[in-house]
Amino acid sequence: MTTIPRLGITVGDPAGIGPEVTAKALADPQIRNLAEYVVFGDRQLWREQSVGKLPFDFHKLPLADYATADAASHPVTAGTVTLVELPDVDYEAIGTGRVTLEGGKVSVQYIMAAIDAVQAGRLDGIVTGPINKEAIRQAGYPWPGHTEMFAEKFAAQQVAMMFAGGPFRVVLVTIHMSLRKVLESITQERVLSIVQLTHQALRELFGIERPVLAVCGLNPHAGEAGRFGDEEELIIIPALEQARSQGIDVRGPLPSDTIYRAAMKGQFDIVVAMYHDQGLIPIKTIAFEDSVNITIGIPAVRTSVDHGTAFDIAGRNMADPSSMKSAIRMAVQMVEARRNAAARAGGRK
Amino acid sequence: MTTIPRLGITVGDPAGIGPEVTAKALADPQIRNLAEYVVFGDRQLWREQSVGKLPFDFHKLPLADYATADAASHPVTAGTVTLVELPDVDYEAIGTGRVTLEGGKVSVQYIMAAIDAVQAGRLDGIVTGPINKEAIRQAGYPWPGHTEMFAEKFAAQQVAMMFAGGPFRVVLVTIHMSLRKVLESITQERVLSIVQLTHQALRELFGIERPVLAVCGLNPHAGEAGRFGDEEELIIIPALEQARSQGIDVRGPLPSDTIYRAAMKGQFDIVVAMYHDQGLIPIKTIAFEDSVNITIGIPAVRTSVDHGTAFDIAGRNMADPSSMKSAIRMAVQMVEARRNAAARAGGRK
Repeated sequence: MTTIPRLGITVGDPAGIGPEVTAKALADPQIRNLAEYVVFGDRQLWREQSVGKLPFDFHKLPLADYATADAASHPVTAGTVTLVELPDVDYEAIGTGRVTLEGGKVSVQYIMAAIDAVQAGRLDGIVTGPINKEAIRQAGYPWPGHTEMFAEKFAAQQVAMMFAGGPFRVVLVTIHMSLRKVLESITQERVLSIVQLTHQALRELFGIERPVLAVCGLNPHAGEAGRFGDEEELIIIPALEQARSQGIDVRGPLPSDTIYRAAMKGQFDIVVAMYHDQGLIPIKTIAFEDSVNITIGIPAVRTSVDHGTAFDIAGRNMADPSSMKSAIRMAVQMVEARRNAAARAGGRK
Repeated sequence: MTTIPRLGITVGDPAGIGPEVTAKALADPQIRNLAEYVVFGDRQLWREQSVGKLPFDFHKLPLADYATADAASHPVTAGTVTLVELPDVDYEAIGTGRVTLEGGKVSVQYIMAAIDAVQAGRLDGIVTGPINKEAIRQAGYPWPGHTEMFAEKFAAQQVAMMFAGGPFRVVLVTIHMSLRKVLESITQERVLSIVQLTHQALRELFGIERPVLAVCGLNPHAGEAGRFGDEEELIIIPALEQARSQGIDVRGPLPSDTIYRAAMKGQFDIVVAMYHDQGLIPIKTIAFEDSVNITIGIPAVRTSVDHGTAFDIAGRNMADPSSMKSAIRMAVQMVEARRNAAARAGGRK
C-alpha cells in the first residue's frame, strides 16, 4: 500500500482551456508534490497553451507503451509527471477555441484510456478536464457527459453527481432533464437510492464516519404540509423513513431556500437536492471558483473541474487553474480516505 | 411636497418578534431620523418585548382619533413616533410565542388600518412586520400573506413579490404553489406582465432610468436549446421578444445556476425568477440578514422584513432588527424615488 496516489488527468477537449489549466495546476509545486501524475494529452497543445516553458520535467510515452508497461515496474514518486500521447491525432484539425468532431473524439479517447488504466490498477483515481458536449455529439458518442461515460464503463447501477466547493457539498437526485421530467423521475426508490449512495460515499470517499445528510423538499417551503404539492408526503418522507430505518442520519425534507444557510453553519455534511438548479444555484453563486464535481456510485475516484471548455479564452493564457487544483486536491484526499476505509474494514488494496 | 416621508409600520403578529424588531430599529437614531413614524401596535407588548425602557419618546393615539385627525394638522417631523392603538384587543389572550386566532385577527387589523391611512393620504408608505399564516387562517381570513391583502385592498390586477438584499434584486413570476402548478402557471402573458411590472417598478420605485432585467429559464441550462424542456422556446422567449418590442431591456432566458453570479458582478439590475426556490435560494443563502420583501404592482410603497414571527425566540430580547432596518431604509428610498419620478413626469403629489 503506497501513500502517494497515482492520479490520471485527462485534459478534456484539446481546443479548450483544459490543457492550460492542467499545465498551470502542475506548475504549482504544492500541487505537483501531492501525487504522481499521468496526463492524457499531447505535448504540443499543453506547451502552447501553457505559460511558455513548463517549470517542471515530464516524460512522454505513447499510449501503447503506457498500456502494456508493468505498472509495478517503478515505485510511485511524488512530483513525477508522465504525458501519455495518443497515436494519429490531427491536432491541427482540432485547433483552438472551437467545436470539432476530432476534438470530441480525442476527448473521449483520453477518458477511455484513463478508465482502462484505473481498471488495470495503474491509476488510483482520475481528474477530468472540461469536454464539449456538442463536440462529443458530433463525434457520434451517445453520452451527454463524463458521468454517463463512467457509469457505462464501470457498469454502475446508479451513479450520482456530487459537487463540493466553498462551504457546501451537494448531490443531485436528478440531473440533466426538464423540470417536467423531474416531476416524473422523483420516485421513492430513486430518492432512497441516492441517499444510500451519498451516505456510503461520505463514509468511504470523505472519511466521515457518521455523515449527516439534509434533503431538500421538491416544492417551496418543502410543500408546507401538503399545501404546495404532495411529493414530500407521498415520495420523499417515506424514502427518508426507509433510509433512517437503515441507520442513515438524514434530515428533511427541508425548504431549499433556507437549507444552504444551515449547511454553511455546518449543520449537515451534505445537501441532497431534487433537481439541477436547486443544487447548483448555491454552488455556482458562492463556490464558483473552487467547486469540484465528483462522480459517486462507481468503484473509483473521479473528480472534475466544474467549468467548461471556455473556448472564448482558450489559447490565450487567461484561464484560472483554481478549479483544477481543487479537483486534484479533492482526488488525493478521496484516494486516501478510501484506503483508510478499506483498512478499517480489514480489506487490502 | 415634503422631503421626509411619513411611514407606517405594522408590528405583525403581537406574539412574534415584530414588536421587538420595530422597537429596536427605531431605537437607532440613524433609522429614527429618516422619517416620521406611525406604528400600528400596542404600548404594552412593544415595551415588554424591547430592551426595557425605549430610548425614544412616542405619543400614543387610539385608532379612531388617528383615523379622523386632520393629516395636514402638523408638519412632518423626522424622528417623531406615534403609536396607534386598536380598541378592545385582548393582548393577554394572544400572549407570546404562539399561534392564536386573536393574534391573526389583530395582525390583519393593523395592516388594514395602515392601508386605509395610505389611501387617505396620511402615510407615504408601509413597512410590515412578520405575520403568521396559520394564525391568519385561524382568524378566518382568506389571504396566504401580505402580498395578497395589498393586492385586494388596492384592487390591483397583477402584483409581484420582489426581494432586495445584499448584491441582488429578484422578482418572482410564481410564488406559493407546487412545482407542478408552476408548470401550468408559467404563461407568455404572465411572464410578459411580470417583466413589464418589474421594469416599471425599477423606474418608479428605484429611480433606475433604463433598467436591465435578466430572466431565468425554467429548465436546467435554460433548456439547452430545447434539449431539456420546451417552455423556454414556447413561452419565455416569445414573452421576452414582446417585452423588447416595447422598449424593455431584458436579457435571457439564462441558466439560473449562473445568472446570480452575473447579477453579483452588476450585469443586471434585477433577476426575474420563474418560481419560488429559483429566486429565494440565492437571496436566503447570501443576503439573509438584510433582505427586504417589496410588493410591486400596487400604487403604494410597501416593504417588509424578510423573516417570520420566530415564535421560538419571541419575548426574549434576542431578535435581530437588521431586516426591519433594511425594510425601513428601502421604503424611505422608494418614497423619494417615486416623488422624483412623479416630478420628472411633471406630476404633482
